[in-house]
Amino acid sequence: MRLSKSFWQTFKEAPKEAQIPSHVLMIRAGLIHKASGGLYNYLPMGQRVIQKISDIVREEHDKEDCQQITMTVVTPGELWQETGRWGVMGELMLKMKDRAGRDLCMSPTNEEAVVDIFRSSVKSYKQLPQTLYQINTKFRDEIRPRYGVMRAREFLMKDAYSFHLDKACLDEGYDKMYRVYENIFKRIGLAFIAVEADGGAIAGGGAKTHEFQVLARTGEDKVIRCKQCGYAANLEKAVSAKRENRENKCKASDKNVSLEMVETPSCTTIEDVCRFLKVEESASLKSLVYYSISGDIETPVLVILVGDDQLNEIKLQNYLKANHLKAASDGEIERLGLVKGYIGPQSLTDIKILIDSAVALDNAYVSGANKSGYHSKGMIPNRDCKNFDVVDLRLAGVGDVCTRCGGEVEEIRGIETGHIFQLGDKYTKDMKVQVLDKSGKGVHPLMGCYGIGVSRIVAAAIEQNFDDNGIVWPKSIAPYHVYFCFIGKSQEIKELAHSLYQSIKDSGVEVVLDDRGAGPGFMFNDADLLGLPLRVILGERDYNNDGLIEIKERKSGKVHKATKDQLISKIKEILTGIN
Amino acid sequence: MRLSKSFWQTFKEAPKEAQIPSHVLMIRAGLIHKASGGLYNYLPMGQRVIQKISDIVREEHDKEDCQQITMTVVTPGELWQETGRWGVMGELMLKMKDRAGRDLCMSPTNEEAVVDIFRSSVKSYKQLPQTLYQINTKFRDEIRPRYGVMRAREFLMKDAYSFHLDKACLDEGYDKMYRVYENIFKRIGLAFIAVEADGGAIAGGGAKTHEFQVLARTGEDKVIRCKQCGYAANLEKAVSAKRENRENKCKASDKNVSLEMVETPSCTTIEDVCRFLKVEESASLKSLVYYSISGDIETPVLVILVGDDQLNEIKLQNYLKANHLKAASDGEIERLGLVKGYIGPQSLTDIKILIDSAVALDNAYVSGANKSGYHSKGMIPNRDCKNFDVVDLRLAGVGDVCTRCGGEVEEIRGIETGHIFQLGDKYTKDMKVQVLDKSGKGVHPLMGCYGIGVSRIVAAAIEQNFDDNGIVWPKSIAPYHVYFCFIGKSQEIKELAHSLYQSIKDSGVEVVLDDRGAGPGFMFNDADLLGLPLRVILGERDYNNDGLIEIKERKSGKVHKATKDQLISKIKEILTGIN
Repeated sequence: MRLSKSFWQTFKEAPKEAQIPSHVLMIRAGLIHKASGGLYNYLPMGQRVIQKISDIVREEHDKEDCQQITMTVVTPGELWQETGRWGVMGELMLKMKDRAGRDLCMSPTNEEAVVDIFRSSVKSYKQLPQTLYQINTKFRDEIRPRYGVMRAREFLMKDAYSFHLDKACLDEGYDKMYRVYENIFKRIGLAFIAVEADGGAIAGGGAKTHEFQVLARTGEDKVIRCKQCGYAANLEKAVSAKRENRENKCKASDKNVSLEMVETPSCTTIEDVCRFLKVEESASLKSLVYYSISGDIETPVLVILVGDDQLNEIKLQNYLKANHLKAASDGEIERLGLVKGYIGPQSLTDIKILIDSAVALDNAYVSGANKSGYHSKGMIPNRDCKNFDVVDLRLAGVGDVCTRCGGEVEEIRGIETGHIFQLGDKYTKDMKVQVLDKSGKGVHPLMGCYGIGVSRIVAAAIEQNFDDNGIVWPKSIAPYHVYFCFIGKSQEIKELAHSLYQSIKDSGVEVVLDDRGAGPGFMFNDADLLGLPLRVILGERDYNNDGLIEIKERKSGKVHKATKDQLISKIKEILTGIN
Repeated sequence: MRLSKSFWQTFKEAPKEAQIPSHVLMIRAGLIHKASGGLYNYLPMGQRVIQKISDIVREEHDKEDCQQITMTVVTPGELWQETGRWGVMGELMLKMKDRAGRDLCMSPTNEEAVVDIFRSSVKSYKQLPQTLYQINTKFRDEIRPRYGVMRAREFLMKDAYSFHLDKACLDEGYDKMYRVYENIFKRIGLAFIAVEADGGAIAGGGAKTHEFQVLARTGEDKVIRCKQCGYAANLEKAVSAKRENRENKCKASDKNVSLEMVETPSCTTIEDVCRFLKVEESASLKSLVYYSISGDIETPVLVILVGDDQLNEIKLQNYLKANHLKAASDGEIERLGLVKGYIGPQSLTDIKILIDSAVALDNAYVSGANKSGYHSKGMIPNRDCKNFDVVDLRLAGVGDVCTRCGGEVEEIRGIETGHIFQLGDKYTKDMKVQVLDKSGKGVHPLMGCYGIGVSRIVAAAIEQNFDDNGIVWPKSIAPYHVYFCFIGKSQEIKELAHSLYQSIKDSGVEVVLDDRGAGPGFMFNDADLLGLPLRVILGERDYNNDGLIEIKERKSGKVHKATKDQLISKIKEILTGIN
């Protein structure tokens, strides 16, 4: 593409709302255009990246006999009624009525639609397993769309759905898709990690599910990874790994210590109390009051954690099988007969109590005394509390040890770009789908579902690959491979540039020619911002001196020289050697 | 693809609502699945056709430096407000509100969105011309979706938009796109015709615009084509070509004939009157009363046509610059002081009168007498009517002559699959977009827009290419090239089939292997229904006799034989020779 004829241009500024590098760079490098909040148009340069990612995703799925389909973007409400998700999805689902008053929605995901397709064709175990996928537009009416295409409302997604007769076959299919995903991210050339994840609303807590996280300092997701055995899980899911010295901290206490109420004036936080009483935070307990909401029913629950731990709300929600959670308000705490800032589990009987499994039940802790201005010392849960459940509820963190191998865990950051789930028979049951097994008995097939955020990968690739000057594309998804600029005003150099450009293009290398007549500084800034793997510079003075053309690698900054005749083979050689 | 592992299957029956061959065959051949009225999912076999058409469309656009983008499917209402189309589009546009109460719609077309992109980047004539296109989902809430994907509500469309500084450049861009469209249809291998068309609501009457009609006996659109000079136009647009003998019919009359009222009891139709008075219908005039509706204003108009002509409502609407038309009801006719069945233009002064240009104004006709039970004879428009306009309003038809060359015209049928328009500055003016010309003056760029119904082409290709047994795909868009079946139960023949299948596949030919274990009749029926260009049959008995494998062409029925070793080269040779 000759840039003088192309629509492409860069922008000096990104709007203030652009807070993360990929958002800033995608706007500035002319990849996207904002249509409205959470709605982005892909401009020609961005479209090429989308197309390349889509092609890789498609090819890797096809290799494994996944079959591509296209489901409608607008799906009928009646399908969602069958599984009850018409109500459950809430405002995330953009609903509308057609001219005949029938319910429709913009598909946020397509389990119902694919099951509807499945049941119209598949009746026998002989037709299983099947994996169908599409690359299509999705819409989720995010309450706060942000970060450009990273959390847009309309986005491009690859969603695959597999159907199996039994769990062994589902496991096999799941493992196959795990490999397909690994191959996709490897082929794109992104550093990534597959982590155990939470099933969320779709799969339900406890289902086997992994996230594929593209690693990036700026990533929104936290991942806990064991440095020793490689165990990795989303922070929301990560199995608590008790710190080695946790128990030591309150070992001084023993079972003979008595429960004692002490005045702790104006100490309503763990920090204040521990400083005032001169104990470690890990020798104190924090008490949190939540409401578990399921349908119209709201049930209060008291959560007890070690003082320096944080609650993992996802774990709590999954344990309670709640639709939603909410933290109790001041008024609600008062109505429960509790005293804000001074709550403790001891002697409470009217509320469900959950004690985190990191709490040493026979050790003595400081906790609230359920009296304004007072805390309890020497509170031993097993002795002083009634009717509690012990549950893993704490958020894992740096300094924890791995429960599998005892190694040290670290926290790394990533961007969730893929997610694979075992759905089991939830949807086939809800939608009353059966196939006949070998004995002629009807069974609900088991399903897996597998998503990749195609448009999100564009942003994630940039978050992982950029510098102060702009984007540094992995070769596989760069909009073009070579940014060709020439410096000099003579007719000869212009003609040479155009003829070399044409030869490079004809040789199958994707190249843009900057023939806009801009100065070198302007061109180089634009080239760096756009971030194609190679920049070729035909400088009139240098070329007339030594007959050499410069090739610069965007990522390493390495500079090569080639004669006019060597140019194409040199470009191909360098491209072959880089990612 | 091994069919035993594929999702594909055929169906014996199509639903009753499937009225046209493509709809029936797409359902029966397992290409599509109905999600709801006017909403169709593409199954794997159909998806491959869609993908191939999309690839051809993309490649032909890219060759001509058109640049691909992707605009959001959901577009903000405020953009449509800028041009006033938020109101004009009516119920065809599916509207909704997001969680914040903002207006959104499913894009039925994207002029506003592309102009919004354009104005954010292009400021100078130096950046022109530009052509941007996308291949994306569109939604039009048709009042009566029908014919399967032919008139679906959600569909896949390629829409391109060009921007130009002046009319000469627009004409050049328009001609380029005309060629791109010709190349696309040629490459797909469809018989088509480009015809002059009506601009409709988007371009406005009078704009330069062509439709690309895929020819098919079953086509919904009528096209008038001159057998001599090749002039072709959509029936709605076709320039009236007066029949040669038209004027002769009423030549018997002369200017001295007097206007005479005759009793015509119970003759309220042209046929009745002409039979009763023993005159040719072409010597009578018919009077039609319409209301021209623009905004809240309804204006009555009396249309006068030669008795055996039909009104072309599109021409009438364009002439009146009306938003809509409606035929007057009995009550409305009465309120206008007219007598239904006996209306004539003579001596009327209170209503706008339009006389079709095929009426010979100095000849004598029979017309209504504006009195119940009476008609007028000897009515000479130029003598007896006041204040009328002469306008081309009749529907062209078989037997007409070409106004360009005098040749005979014929009526052929087609399916509109492409439409190109010159939009002029309508949208850039409404959206206040200017670029600076060479003299530094701001001008509204001119636009063209160019649409191809990608999913519609699937149906149109079938309407043009099918027989009693099923689809007959053009090679370029067939889901696969070869349907490989084997007959015989021995392990040897099975193994040979699988190994030949693998070799054919590895050689780059797209092949399916029917390894479902069905009988020959079943397989052959399925193969014919699916309509791949070649069917390869490895029959155990024949192969053991003579070592030959059969290759049958779906279209011609021609049968070839090849040995195992010749098979691949023979397949490739045949494929090269057919369309």
